[in-house]
Amino acid sequence: MATGRFITLEGGEGVGKTTQLAALAEALRARGKTVVTTREPGGSEGAEAIRGLLLEGGEERWSAPAEALLFAAARTDHVDKVVRPALALGHWVLCDRFLDSSLAYQGGAGGLGIEEVRAINLFGIADCLPDRTLLLVHSHGAERALHRDGGASDRIGGRPASYHRAVEDAFRSIAASEPDRVRLIDASGSPAEVTDRLLAALEDLA
Amino acid sequence: MATGRFITLEGGEGVGKTTQLAALAEALRARGKTVVTTREPGGSEGAEAIRGLLLEGGEERWSAPAEALLFAAARTDHVDKVVRPALALGHWVLCDRFLDSSLAYQGGAGGLGIEEVRAINLFGIADCLPDRTLLLVHSHGAERALHRDGGASDRIGGRPASYHRAVEDAFRSIAASEPDRVRLIDASGSPAEVTDRLLAALEDLA
Repeated sequence: MATGRFITLEGGEGVGKTTQLAALAEALRARGKTVVTTREPGGSEGAEAIRGLLLEGGEERWSAPAEALLFAAARTDHVDKVVRPALALGHWVLCDRFLDSSLAYQGGAGGLGIEEVRAINLFGIADCLPDRTLLLVHSHGAERALHRDGGASDRIGGRPASYHRAVEDAFRSIAASEPDRVRLIDASGSPAEVTDRLLAALEDLA
Repeated sequence: MATGRFITLEGGEGVGKTTQLAALAEALRARGKTVVTTREPGGSEGAEAIRGLLLEGGEERWSAPAEALLFAAARTDHVDKVVRPALALGHWVLCDRFLDSSLAYQGGAGGLGIEEVRAINLFGIADCLPDRTLLLVHSHGAERALHRDGGASDRIGGRPASYHRAVEDAFRSIAASEPDRVRLIDASGSPAEVTDRLLAALEDLA
């Protein structure tokens, strides 16, 4: 049976993760892989129910630690019900955001601590970690322009540029500490150019 | 201003916690305390919403780690929205089940590990730990009779006697490791006799 691979796409707002996930899935299917695409928060029935709780109400509805525990519970259900079963069948699982988003947004930029947030997540997902994480990054110049223009519109995307810089810094520090798992991918150029870079960063796993 | 105290009641099924909580609250009010009674799982709007998720569906709805993370998230919200604000006003907070129930049921009897379950909970509640925990216990003879008769009827109460013995063992081991916080209270005799024992175990806090 084929060997399943667990691939996650990470990065800040507006960096093109969703578009690239679809393109990467197409490219891998064209190479004969069975590909399951999914996304967090959510991705399973239980996790979507928790996502509903997270999105209800205002900023004060949940404290930062309560929110982080809910994200970890949702991720655990997603892993239990979707990711592990697909990997057991030998499928490739491509996931739009996973553990590193919690580490960067809540642990790093949110101030809860990267290692503390990692610990509550590992309690739930145990050894189900990505075989490869593709971190899409803008060049620093493009990043600043995006934030000055204020293109993003939802609750998290609308936070100040300093917050988004802290997220990016946390992502880069995670990547630096796990260079084999996490690969920085330049998000500049045409979508097809970026997809080629993603595929190149998976070549040793095929 | 008066000093708030955080008191939790713990113990297995059918040991009389709910009755004793009400009687203890009355007795403390008669001594001039302002008393807030609450219970877990639930106790705040957010925690009740999470409790709803926990009770939906069958045994397979959530894995044991996902369930433990949801309990920890609910507890965090309960502490944030109910327990800490009441303590800050100088009230006595009496809570029917708290952290030690997660440690005994999920950590001990459920096999997730007492220290592992403690860690995810401390992530959420930080330093909001009980000033005193009153652990109601049957004599071992009465305990065995209760379980042989199968008096309990809900999903957890209906589990086999070996499970309930593991819960009781875990509670006793927590009590042994934190003798200043956790006091074993004999649940035999009349309700008034038990209430007197509970009050005696709080005398140094008044």
